[in-house]
Amino acid sequence: MSAYAQLEQRFKRLSALREAAGLLQWDMSTMMPAGGAEARGEQLAALEVTCHELLSAPETAELLEAAEGAAAECEAGELEPWAHANLREMRRHWRHETALDPALVEALSKAGNACEMVWREARAQADFAMVLPRLKELLGLVRRAAAAKSEVLGCTPYDALLDQYEPGGASARIDEIFDGLAAFLPDFLSRVLERQAAAPAPLALDGPFPVETQRALARRLMEKVGFDFAGGRLDESLHPFCGGVPEDLRITTRYDETDFTKALMGVLHETGHAMYERGLPAKWRLQPVGEARGMAIHESQSLLIEMQVCRGAEFVGYLAPLAREAFGGQGPAWEADNLLRIYNRVEPGFIRVDADEVTYPAHVILRYRLEKRLIAGEMEPDDLPEAWNAGMAELLGITPPDDGLGCLQDIHWYDGAWGYFPTYTLGAMAAAQLFAAAKTAVPEIPEAISRGDFTPLMAWLGAHVHALGSLHTTDDLIERATGRPLDPKVFEAHLKARYLGES
Amino acid sequence: MSAYAQLEQRFKRLSALREAAGLLQWDMSTMMPAGGAEARGEQLAALEVTCHELLSAPETAELLEAAEGAAAECEAGELEPWAHANLREMRRHWRHETALDPALVEALSKAGNACEMVWREARAQADFAMVLPRLKELLGLVRRAAAAKSEVLGCTPYDALLDQYEPGGASARIDEIFDGLAAFLPDFLSRVLERQAAAPAPLALDGPFPVETQRALARRLMEKVGFDFAGGRLDESLHPFCGGVPEDLRITTRYDETDFTKALMGVLHETGHAMYERGLPAKWRLQPVGEARGMAIHESQSLLIEMQVCRGAEFVGYLAPLAREAFGGQGPAWEADNLLRIYNRVEPGFIRVDADEVTYPAHVILRYRLEKRLIAGEMEPDDLPEAWNAGMAELLGITPPDDGLGCLQDIHWYDGAWGYFPTYTLGAMAAAQLFAAAKTAVPEIPEAISRGDFTPLMAWLGAHVHALGSLHTTDDLIERATGRPLDPKVFEAHLKARYLGES
Repeated sequence: MSAYAQLEQRFKRLSALREAAGLLQWDMSTMMPAGGAEARGEQLAALEVTCHELLSAPETAELLEAAEGAAAECEAGELEPWAHANLREMRRHWRHETALDPALVEALSKAGNACEMVWREARAQADFAMVLPRLKELLGLVRRAAAAKSEVLGCTPYDALLDQYEPGGASARIDEIFDGLAAFLPDFLSRVLERQAAAPAPLALDGPFPVETQRALARRLMEKVGFDFAGGRLDESLHPFCGGVPEDLRITTRYDETDFTKALMGVLHETGHAMYERGLPAKWRLQPVGEARGMAIHESQSLLIEMQVCRGAEFVGYLAPLAREAFGGQGPAWEADNLLRIYNRVEPGFIRVDADEVTYPAHVILRYRLEKRLIAGEMEPDDLPEAWNAGMAELLGITPPDDGLGCLQDIHWYDGAWGYFPTYTLGAMAAAQLFAAAKTAVPEIPEAISRGDFTPLMAWLGAHVHALGSLHTTDDLIERATGRPLDPKVFEAHLKARYLGES
Repeated sequence: MSAYAQLEQRFKRLSALREAAGLLQWDMSTMMPAGGAEARGEQLAALEVTCHELLSAPETAELLEAAEGAAAECEAGELEPWAHANLREMRRHWRHETALDPALVEALSKAGNACEMVWREARAQADFAMVLPRLKELLGLVRRAAAAKSEVLGCTPYDALLDQYEPGGASARIDEIFDGLAAFLPDFLSRVLERQAAAPAPLALDGPFPVETQRALARRLMEKVGFDFAGGRLDESLHPFCGGVPEDLRITTRYDETDFTKALMGVLHETGHAMYERGLPAKWRLQPVGEARGMAIHESQSLLIEMQVCRGAEFVGYLAPLAREAFGGQGPAWEADNLLRIYNRVEPGFIRVDADEVTYPAHVILRYRLEKRLIAGEMEPDDLPEAWNAGMAELLGITPPDDGLGCLQDIHWYDGAWGYFPTYTLGAMAAAQLFAAAKTAVPEIPEAISRGDFTPLMAWLGAHVHALGSLHTTDDLIERATGRPLDPKVFEAHLKARYLGES
């Protein structure tokens, strides 16, 4: 058996074990009684150690070298393009997994857990000082990990962290994109708020909205998007997510009986993630090249469904009568134009996860700028609250009344996920660009969506995004699908069209 | 670190990985959409291969030898009794795992899956010929496995299979016990049926019985037995079982809206299993000595709760008003004496899983005798239907109209679980003996149960069975708990008392 074929076997087992861990995590979020936490922790740790040993075994390194040598020797390329890309991705996974010595991996895991535990309490009490010592300890370890990975990957420490979530991502390029957006947003936001103030305010939808009815409507809309319940479920969890495997996708949401609009849009968002997973190349299941391309593209798929499509006039026009019928609503509040006003409402606020499409990037840019300086050692955690509040004032013109509504709100930094934030806004931009390209290529998409028919859109996304797995880099994928590199102007144009009526 | 300490680490990881596999199986039975089957199969296979490699690695064998050598050298014993027993159980697991060469393990797994698939169809169509070729192939492999294990364990091939489920189990002893029971049962059964015919027939309980109400009542009774929902769940599956881990127990049942009595008793049965798992020694979690002693003792705990306690007059007297209230029942059918008649009804039938306490052993004895001859090569699968029907006629006086109600009814043989059947009836006997001993030691148990108070019984079972894990052999455990070895006369006395009123 060739070295490459042996690698495929090894990565197949690795992926299957990681999928097992994913199911354990899904269960933990949706089904597990509180008493099971410690045992589940042991099970997940055993899986993690097993995966690490499999990947960092000397034999894996030898097989990688042999397979790369064989591929390089053949002028014509011994491997066809997918296998070639698979080998590239295997090496990428291997580099990340072996860059850190096991002691640092363990220290990071423990410091992350310890910091997260204290953070939960600190956030509840809006007491940054409470978590500061833990955060300092954790950041120290994260900086060491970033330094170690930067040496292996040949990039800056921040980019080495970013690469875990967004392969090939580069902060030089993100700086450029985000600086442009930061220059565009404040003035744009003022104009949107002004225009919004001049228009009628949305009418409130009177509830209550029973969970059962919300779930039934959500399931119906998921199926419209293309979700197949023979290959997935919809459950409940505190923090909505999409887990599972392509043939068995597990979406979660949480319901509020006084407001159905959030759970519904949340489910559609997760369905966008699910459709990406579902559409990944079946031939490359359990291989690195068969996985989603990265978090920016993944987020582009959820935001394309949620923001580009489902908060758009065509879909809301389709949704309004369904919602009215499901909940027995009456009167002008249930008309499509009012529902559209609700779904397109812009309002600067303190909390990222509650933010609208216009103000969301400001939240991300703030975090990105701060975490970059913190990783580079240009700033220390002690200065975080002040820098946070200054950034909020600059970007959104508001100042959080306390750190619970400020720098304590997100779990990411406190459990060790540094370098993740920019993918949210890169995803939003890619979503705008991909949707624009899809509509250009298949002009009937908007009209189909107004009938609840996602087939033409999904066919295009399937061919140009989903079925490609990790064959191309993120940049290549976007350029091949849309004819040009990621272009922030497309996102800005989308915002202008939707919120100012400019086209 | 000592060789023994290293073994503890290794087995801890092994157990955690097996628990992960257990959760994957629970999910498969309760939550997984049909589409997930293949991916789940890959995940479980990856876990199985990983566990096999961990246990069969040369290092494990070296550590076992070193630890056993160290333990043998010290006259006083280097290890305290629990650690000593843990080492014994580690060696036992190792022997079973390494007795078969990997090719045979794989062939067995594939042949079992293939045979089970065909069996599902064959059973539905009552067509034994359809599955016969697969069964022959599978039995051939099982015989090879039994031969290989018998060499390693130094026992007969059948006992080597039995040892997987009932450590130290010996068919010579089982023959003796079952022959006595087979001699006792036919005449006893006639007398029971005669007495039953002379008494009033049970009155039917009029439904329907909504699933929600059944579930609420079942949960309430589970809590009465001692089940803690902060450490477990009750869900639904086609075949009821108890899975999970001691801190997170997963019981399943299935509901029939025309008859609540079966699901209720099924849940109580599984709760008996759960209480055993819950009471295992926490100090030895994830170690072999911390596991349940074997399937006979496990079944004794479920049957003690179901058969000995919950089908007894004291508990039914407690249950009747609760059931009446829950379902809004009225009239004499809802009186305790009628419910007791329902729960103690004896009726020879074709299907083992539907059998009452009196006729159940006949089903087991039949299967035990047949599988022993099949493993020994004294009989071939071709002759199974005829031998089955002859056995049913001899033991229960009835002849199945077709093989679907005969030798095709159980999954065990068709998916490769040979040597399992006797544990059901050994468990029933141990249940009778343990319950008798508990009542002798703690005379207030029956009165407490008549008030729905399981505390005194559970305290005794906890101390004499649950908390002992696999410290002792099955025989030792029974003798220490009850003052004598397993004695079939106690079970017979229980049957005589309950069904003939003799004491």
